[in-house]
Amino acid sequence: MTSVDVAPARQRPITFDILLPPPADGSTRARLGHLRTAHGEIQTPVFMPVGTNATVKALDPDDLDEVGVQIILCNTYHLYLRPGHERIERLGGLHQFMAWRRPILTDSGGYQVVSLGDFRSVDDEGVTFRSHLDGSLHNFSPEQSIAVQEALGSDIAVVLDQPVPPHSSGRREVAEAMVRTHAWAERCVSAHRRPDQALFGIVQGGLEPDLRAESTRVIASMPVDGICIGGRAGDESAAQRRAALDVCVTLLADDPRPRYLMGLGSPADLLDAVDAGIDMFDSVLPARIARNGTVWVPEGRLNLRNTRFLDDPAPIQQGCRCRACRSFSRAYLAHLLRADELLFYRLATLHNLTFLTDFMARIRMALAKGKFPRLVRELAAPQSNQMAMGLEA
Amino acid sequence: MTSVDVAPARQRPITFDILLPPPADGSTRARLGHLRTAHGEIQTPVFMPVGTNATVKALDPDDLDEVGVQIILCNTYHLYLRPGHERIERLGGLHQFMAWRRPILTDSGGYQVVSLGDFRSVDDEGVTFRSHLDGSLHNFSPEQSIAVQEALGSDIAVVLDQPVPPHSSGRREVAEAMVRTHAWAERCVSAHRRPDQALFGIVQGGLEPDLRAESTRVIASMPVDGICIGGRAGDESAAQRRAALDVCVTLLADDPRPRYLMGLGSPADLLDAVDAGIDMFDSVLPARIARNGTVWVPEGRLNLRNTRFLDDPAPIQQGCRCRACRSFSRAYLAHLLRADELLFYRLATLHNLTFLTDFMARIRMALAKGKFPRLVRELAAPQSNQMAMGLEA
Repeated sequence: MTSVDVAPARQRPITFDILLPPPADGSTRARLGHLRTAHGEIQTPVFMPVGTNATVKALDPDDLDEVGVQIILCNTYHLYLRPGHERIERLGGLHQFMAWRRPILTDSGGYQVVSLGDFRSVDDEGVTFRSHLDGSLHNFSPEQSIAVQEALGSDIAVVLDQPVPPHSSGRREVAEAMVRTHAWAERCVSAHRRPDQALFGIVQGGLEPDLRAESTRVIASMPVDGICIGGRAGDESAAQRRAALDVCVTLLADDPRPRYLMGLGSPADLLDAVDAGIDMFDSVLPARIARNGTVWVPEGRLNLRNTRFLDDPAPIQQGCRCRACRSFSRAYLAHLLRADELLFYRLATLHNLTFLTDFMARIRMALAKGKFPRLVRELAAPQSNQMAMGLEA
Repeated sequence: MTSVDVAPARQRPITFDILLPPPADGSTRARLGHLRTAHGEIQTPVFMPVGTNATVKALDPDDLDEVGVQIILCNTYHLYLRPGHERIERLGGLHQFMAWRRPILTDSGGYQVVSLGDFRSVDDEGVTFRSHLDGSLHNFSPEQSIAVQEALGSDIAVVLDQPVPPHSSGRREVAEAMVRTHAWAERCVSAHRRPDQALFGIVQGGLEPDLRAESTRVIASMPVDGICIGGRAGDESAAQRRAALDVCVTLLADDPRPRYLMGLGSPADLLDAVDAGIDMFDSVLPARIARNGTVWVPEGRLNLRNTRFLDDPAPIQQGCRCRACRSFSRAYLAHLLRADELLFYRLATLHNLTFLTDFMARIRMALAKGKFPRLVRELAAPQSNQMAMGLEA
């Protein structure tokens, strides 16, 4: 199963077409793509909102349609624990369960086991951990991760990996996790059966250029349908992240498969990673900052807890098409936030997801017109009134 | 200002037409009505959802339109404290603030002062109380209540009253509160200026038939646009409540104004009060039970915390037109509830409000066809599979 013979695209559960490759002048590695899945088509680069518990927090599927969301990510770890993958399978699969008819990508659970499990022990066999919900003990192997994702019935599954725990980036640990991730990836490929579900591999290797390169070569040699770039600890600098991406994407330059950078969500970070050649993204950031009262605008961020917004009759963002901006003032939203009203969280999340969705559409439009490098320069220019979007984390 | 000369209907801010009066056979006092306000028309009998903080909890105005809500109630006490009635006035009034273009009724704040204020002292001048939000000290007089409601710009304002505190129903206290309520009502009528806003009086008198009768006569003699029946302590039996209603409605039989029973929300209670001759209702009940995981169905109530629903692929209620029932299973809703996901509260509230709205429409349809007494018998019949709706509190 380490063969590089990838089956013809028409027999795979997804197809990925690069509509516009990066320009020959080397001004960017960004590319415009088109991904076909069993539940519909996706224009890339694309941002995927996270629906941890089979719901994008505070939103329903019609809200997601209104935003223009093309694909969502659901968390295998959470759904395995509650309500259980077998229950979801009996109820017709994840799409029917949550009434979302467009594509779904499931992660492998590896990241959550490391970050949420109260107790965990990793060996070559897999991960043993305690549920963060009730302390119950669970074993999670590569084969188990695939079985769970096949039961959920996502359009794209992801191999089980061993992410490097944040703030623990010793080279030896990174190397060991990488080797184990490769072995687990092979086992996931062997275990995977579902013909209507794609499987993505995950590149690890931390911030070590030689390990990143090795991991990229090993994962790319496997018959997976796409390449995830994992192993972000979340505490690396933008320059460090870009350097790691450049190692991977250089090696993948002629690879026909989509590239997915896991866990990145701010507009500035997305712009940079698209420039580095990434096609897919996910993050809880738009919903998480909304819960803190923060909304994105072209000039940066607004925190609606600020008292000055209590008398502000303007919408969050003039001209924004979202439900919050169409009907409500900053004053009303600031009131809802202070009163801890549920409607605030829905409206603020709708705005942030609309902002990011429209930002990605703007990136795709620039790519289609050959003007992406200019967009990057414009958004980074200090004199631009959109500077903040370019610089804001 | 104690004159009984009510101005001609066409000069009043609202008009109320009784489309079908109670039948001559005395089988019911229920009646079909039509209320016109500055923000639209209302078919009665009508249930008004409560939007305490200028939002019906978890819902937006489009949700309310989808349910078919004709009019909502907002709480003067809450909006006076936060964000402040003067702020709302500066922002264009309550309709614009919350983007609700249909009618709004505001209560007077009297009930909340009694039930929520941390400290309160009542004298003839008004109420002194401490905010439940920050402990700040406030004076609330009849004139102040009217000024706040005029600033909010509701379609229907309500006079300040002194409700009898729950479990304190000594006749002398009830009588004193009633006399004070009458004096305050006169002051509210004198203070009220806004020509596009109706003003309703409030009948008090607890469960004392002679006091109820006296209060009904006094309030009905004032040039108010509608009659609220207040003073429910919430701990009276259904029979006690019906007896008090019968005293009021008998005296109001030839009165052309709408009758509004404050704070009643279960289907069985509404059916009985419509039968007693009431036109308008409000309650937080549909949203409050939704937050506990409880939804209404024709057979009674379901609590979605029950484990049996985790595997139930059926909707809450077969054939229900609401957003929850159109797309989602009981299993999914039970999962969302256990995961404490915000979407649950929106969907469960939408279902309960749709259930109650459709129940009121069914009552109006029965009234229009002269079949209301039959509907009451059917829903109360023990052999009916809808028994629970008739009996459930």
